Amino acid sequence: MVSAADAVIPACAAVGIAFAVWQWLLVSRVKVSPYSAAAAAARNGGAGRAVFRPEGEVDDDDGGCGDDEEADGDGGVAAMARCAEIQSAIRVGANSFLFTQYKYLAAFTAVFAVVIFLFLGSVHRFSTESQPCQYTRGKACKPALANAVFSTIAFLLGAATSVASGFLGMRIATAANARTTVEARRGIGPAFAAAFRSGAVMGFLLASLGLLVLYVAIKVFGLYYGDDWEGLYESITGYGLGGSSMALFGRVGGGIYTKAADVGADLVGKVERNIPEDDPRNPAVIADNVGDNVGDIAGMGSDLFGSYAESTCAALFVASISSFGADHNFAAVSYPLLISSAGLIVCLITTLFATDLYRVKTVDGVAPALKLQLLISTVLMTVGVLVVTFTALPHEFTMFDFGEVKRVKNWHLFFCVTIGLWAGLAIGFTTEYFTSNAYSPVRDVADSCRTGAATNVIFGLALGYKSVIVPVFAIAVSIYVSFTLASIYGIAVAALGMLSTVATGLAIDAYGPISDNAGGIAEMAGMSHRIRQRTDALDAAGNTTAAIGKGFAIGSAALVSLALFGAFVSRAGMAVINVLSPKVFVGLVVGAMLPYWFSAMTMKSVGSAALKMVEEVRRQFAAIPGLMEGRATPDYASCVRISTDASLREMMPPGALVLLAPLVAGTFFGVQTLAGLLAGALVSGVQVAISASNSGGAWDNAKKYIEAGASDHAKALGPKGSDAHKAAVIGDTIGDPLKDTSGPSLNILIKLMAVESLVFAPFFAAHGGLIFK
Amino acid sequence: MVSAADAVIPACAAVGIAFAVWQWLLVSRVKVSPYSAAAAAARNGGAGRAVFRPEGEVDDDDGGCGDDEEADGDGGVAAMARCAEIQSAIRVGANSFLFTQYKYLAAFTAVFAVVIFLFLGSVHRFSTESQPCQYTRGKACKPALANAVFSTIAFLLGAATSVASGFLGMRIATAANARTTVEARRGIGPAFAAAFRSGAVMGFLLASLGLLVLYVAIKVFGLYYGDDWEGLYESITGYGLGGSSMALFGRVGGGIYTKAADVGADLVGKVERNIPEDDPRNPAVIADNVGDNVGDIAGMGSDLFGSYAESTCAALFVASISSFGADHNFAAVSYPLLISSAGLIVCLITTLFATDLYRVKTVDGVAPALKLQLLISTVLMTVGVLVVTFTALPHEFTMFDFGEVKRVKNWHLFFCVTIGLWAGLAIGFTTEYFTSNAYSPVRDVADSCRTGAATNVIFGLALGYKSVIVPVFAIAVSIYVSFTLASIYGIAVAALGMLSTVATGLAIDAYGPISDNAGGIAEMAGMSHRIRQRTDALDAAGNTTAAIGKGFAIGSAALVSLALFGAFVSRAGMAVINVLSPKVFVGLVVGAMLPYWFSAMTMKSVGSAALKMVEEVRRQFAAIPGLMEGRATPDYASCVRISTDASLREMMPPGALVLLAPLVAGTFFGVQTLAGLLAGALVSGVQVAISASNSGGAWDNAKKYIEAGASDHAKALGPKGSDAHKAAVIGDTIGDPLKDTSGPSLNILIKLMAVESLVFAPFFAAHGGLIFK
Repeated sequence: MVSAADAVIPACAAVGIAFAVWQWLLVSRVKVSPYSAAAAAARNGGAGRAVFRPEGEVDDDDGGCGDDEEADGDGGVAAMARCAEIQSAIRVGANSFLFTQYKYLAAFTAVFAVVIFLFLGSVHRFSTESQPCQYTRGKACKPALANAVFSTIAFLLGAATSVASGFLGMRIATAANARTTVEARRGIGPAFAAAFRSGAVMGFLLASLGLLVLYVAIKVFGLYYGDDWEGLYESITGYGLGGSSMALFGRVGGGIYTKAADVGADLVGKVERNIPEDDPRNPAVIADNVGDNVGDIAGMGSDLFGSYAESTCAALFVASISSFGADHNFAAVSYPLLISSAGLIVCLITTLFATDLYRVKTVDGVAPALKLQLLISTVLMTVGVLVVTFTALPHEFTMFDFGEVKRVKNWHLFFCVTIGLWAGLAIGFTTEYFTSNAYSPVRDVADSCRTGAATNVIFGLALGYKSVIVPVFAIAVSIYVSFTLASIYGIAVAALGMLSTVATGLAIDAYGPISDNAGGIAEMAGMSHRIRQRTDALDAAGNTTAAIGKGFAIGSAALVSLALFGAFVSRAGMAVINVLSPKVFVGLVVGAMLPYWFSAMTMKSVGSAALKMVEEVRRQFAAIPGLMEGRATPDYASCVRISTDASLREMMPPGALVLLAPLVAGTFFGVQTLAGLLAGALVSGVQVAISASNSGGAWDNAKKYIEAGASDHAKALGPKGSDAHKAAVIGDTIGDPLKDTSGPSLNILIKLMAVESLVFAPFFAAHGGLIFK
Repeated sequence: MVSAADAVIPACAAVGIAFAVWQWLLVSRVKVSPYSAAAAAARNGGAGRAVFRPEGEVDDDDGGCGDDEEADGDGGVAAMARCAEIQSAIRVGANSFLFTQYKYLAAFTAVFAVVIFLFLGSVHRFSTESQPCQYTRGKACKPALANAVFSTIAFLLGAATSVASGFLGMRIATAANARTTVEARRGIGPAFAAAFRSGAVMGFLLASLGLLVLYVAIKVFGLYYGDDWEGLYESITGYGLGGSSMALFGRVGGGIYTKAADVGADLVGKVERNIPEDDPRNPAVIADNVGDNVGDIAGMGSDLFGSYAESTCAALFVASISSFGADHNFAAVSYPLLISSAGLIVCLITTLFATDLYRVKTVDGVAPALKLQLLISTVLMTVGVLVVTFTALPHEFTMFDFGEVKRVKNWHLFFCVTIGLWAGLAIGFTTEYFTSNAYSPVRDVADSCRTGAATNVIFGLALGYKSVIVPVFAIAVSIYVSFTLASIYGIAVAALGMLSTVATGLAIDAYGPISDNAGGIAEMAGMSHRIRQRTDALDAAGNTTAAIGKGFAIGSAALVSLALFGAFVSRAGMAVINVLSPKVFVGLVVGAMLPYWFSAMTMKSVGSAALKMVEEVRRQFAAIPGLMEGRATPDYASCVRISTDASLREMMPPGALVLLAPLVAGTFFGVQTLAGLLAGALVSGVQVAISASNSGGAWDNAKKYIEAGASDHAKALGPKGSDAHKAAVIGDTIGDPLKDTSGPSLNILIKLMAVESLVFAPFFAAHGGLIFK
């Protein structure tokens, strides 16, 4: 059974991977070792000009004066050497953290794989006999034991892909950061291009890899399952669980790591010692920069990969028990994969707009260029969805609708996917409005710093709460439309619509921490104020895109987990989840509490780890003579160790909460309570996550607004070290764990609980609800 | 039709009122005018001893040295005169605010009464003909128009009772504050007794008044309705709506008032000018003290009155459409009123434990005495519930269960009420654990001040999130048990169980702001450090009891609004609220967002009003010569005006949000979406409210912990003015709007939306859902 989908999907994935490699080749032409810099200078006929420069590009940045001071003579080479050295320290730290983390994850994965196998195998007491199919009457399906085996394999595959995604992202980012710094010597345009291309490498690799592995898994599993698509796509859901459970630890562990270092570094450095951010005298500075890579890059990568894998799995599962599955129409069942394939091509074109067709030339051009990426990808993707929908799908078909059957037309699905796509854009732009210092919300927060840290925090919290309104309405409208048109399948493809431009989303998202690191390296390498200004401009835009990325992540997570929820409900054979049943209602109220419990754990972890970091940094300033004067080198490694130990230890309890809650609810209280729990966690978690990440983003940019002093208003609040600025720094520090640890981890909480329930649904349906029985 | 209930209910209400009057006579014997003080001194044979002293009480407070320095000679009289003067300024400010607020409320009430009449009258197009009953087949009930008229009257009654409750509470509190200060000269015991008795006056007046008015209304309405109990108790639900809508403005307006003044006073006074809290040189100090009375006293009074009225109305309505109503068993229908009657007697006995049987003699005895009140009232009430249940109810009966009928035994209801009662205690003790500085959570927060305001805020937020866990489980267990045993009626009586000891709850709750004011008056009147220490001890315990009161308020609000939700669903004729319906799910997710939208508004309001206050205070310090040196008097009135104007203006948008959301959802999207909206707001609002009020309470007490310096650990963090203390002050200021404005207002959000839906249910069922039609 070969269909056109069998050509299109692998081809698009291959194009995506090839594009990533090409982008990486462009970036890697920038050399950061002192030797190469000198050689390049000679080769280019002087001025230490780095190699990477597409022809025709004119270097007319803000100053417009061509090459930079450091580029001339030895200063350049020495700075280069320092860049290379710092980059290597960051890479070593990130590598070492991730490898230690992977040891824990390997142990966890092994244990959890056994749990999955035992739970699912026990559904029919490990019988090797065929069972009657659940949805296709009168047909025999593969035994539950086979589903247990393949679900476990899919879980392992998902986990491996997720880990690979995070690791590749980290490697790319740690190679890109210093290259961006080096390019910043040449101007804002090349620096932007280096950071953005590197982000694109990560985005395309992840999106293509996720698609390809999933496609291959379906094909290979299909060899065994043959005609039994129910079992095939039920097993495939394990892929989503694997991806998401790795993402949980990546987000939580990475989040704790990065913020323990960041908060600790800031509290002593900025507040007590009055030294700037990223100052090389601060012992925690390397840990802070490592953190950006393991938290914001590897964590975010795993998170979005997880969302992508889960929404695809949910859609595939629902399709398999609908008429697509009954008709064995592979192209139609593969609709989610085709949408993602089209997305890769759309994102490829979109990327060229930023790197080749429309070039960033001034500092002010950075943010609009990134914003344009969102708009272009959305517009193009709408066309892509149209094409895929009308070529891959029959004109009319039926969808499983909680025991009923719903008639759906192909243009219904076009609307479902498109509304998700555009809701994502609405969320992105709302997030930008609330977290960019170009608009009044952040400026009001900055203004409130005049009366101190307390008003700053009050205004920032209020801003975060307010920023929830539009995204929630966007999500609600998407849910209403897609749910009404195509039931749970509609939700799943709406989520896929939002994630279809994930390559671009990841690119602009990864761009943020890369720029942040580039700024850090510039500061530590002692580069001039002017270069630092350029990296700061990149970084400020990066803060907003990071917030936008989090907005996308949470928006898609809401849709994904609703889709998974629907798939779970279908798989568990429920037709109604009645709020008026006590079992459901208690699930709802306890579920709504889980995000708070989880956030309490993660925030406290960051706080405690930061206190340890503070003590170590203070100790070093006291114990190492000449450190404050810059005559001695701090012991960076001990700070890296503190962050590593703290994050690995502290990621366990919140991880256990997320993984155990559905198991306990399903096993002891049954599927009704579990369904309530999932719905409660979903509707409450969305709010907490959005408000936390936007409050944090706003505080960060309010601080940057005061520091940059770009307007009269901002100048009146500044400069660095003024009372208003100190108040802003406090807000920024409070926002750190909110925006980079607890907030984004909640995406995973709501998704992971849902996908776990889906995978374990056969078990819960057969043996769950021990207490209420 | 006369039953024993007709004797018991008015008798208990009368006893409650008489007890309140007696307590007030005891308190009012303390005189605060200078003349009376001197006279009292003469009458008592010296030492300015105030009159109020139950015989046999020995004044062995912490110092154990009998009378105080100020009590001797002229200093005492001068201080007395200042006390009287300050008290009068506070009373005038509070009076003036409340009267201005009442003008707005009168206009609102008039308009809303018309809306209620028009909406409900239109159900059967204002027909004056009888209609067939909805629940009793084949019987004729009164016309919908009559229900519209009586619902409107009940609404007006509820509004009037709520306003009267708030106003009486304020009058009592503003009379009690200076009396507590005066008694503090004699020792901690008398001061505690004065504050606590005054709280009891308010508690008993409110509880008795609420019961009596409701009872009389039922009797009077019954003259018209006769046998039509469906219509009678449906109309009575207007009483709850009236009570709660006044409470909304009381809580929001009062909350903004008090915190604008408090934050504004602190920001300039403590942070910029380095003068202590309640210093008479601070122009905002009177406004701050007025705020305690209009926000924490009048607001809290209206809030708990509203909860009480609503849970009773919900229970009565459900009972009327169950077998109690069909059998016309008045004693059984009046079960909720009988429970409240028993509660009054139990609370009366409990109060005597604190004032007569067990006396507070040392500073350390204050908190345990208050805690004991909770425990005693709960234990005694368990017996009370037992007696009422087995005398008033038949052995077996049936309850309306969303279209079905549920068989219930009388001992089932005993368990429902009792589990609510004990869940309240669990919530109270958990709140105490998380907000009292006797335990490690607050001490950890205080400790985190060592590294500055940022860690303080991170730890405080995490504490608030964590404090949600136990209360939510307590609520969940109550819901599960009572819902399972007696459906929605079970929930309603569980809520009543939690509120049955409301007189004691209000007493210990009102005790807090009275003590706070007493401390303020002592400071402003220039009383000695020793007296201030005593009032501070009362105040610190009061902070915790205020947090406990808020815990009760939100816990009961959760149950109440679930009961109202159930009654609404029953009245609208729905049997299932299916989460798997898009209409319901979008309601759920948007409803979960409303508490955030609402909090954003109220917090921003406090922030903006506080900024205005800061400007005025700064202006006065700059413009009035000699103010800082204490040689000139500030213009207190202008600060009072700022708070008044800000709160009245700013209470409109959040009020409109709460009142319009159910109307819009019900009218345009229908009862299914509205039901989702209510459930979402409920499960999300509970979490936000509990975490906000506990974070705020913890920050406040962490600051007090450092200030008091009662342990080596606390001493190491202090004294006042140290860096850690400054960080603690910032946390305290951030917590102010969380714990006194946005947090407690959310109780009302969830209750009011539910009761409004219940009252308008006939309209929504008949004409709602315009868009989806």
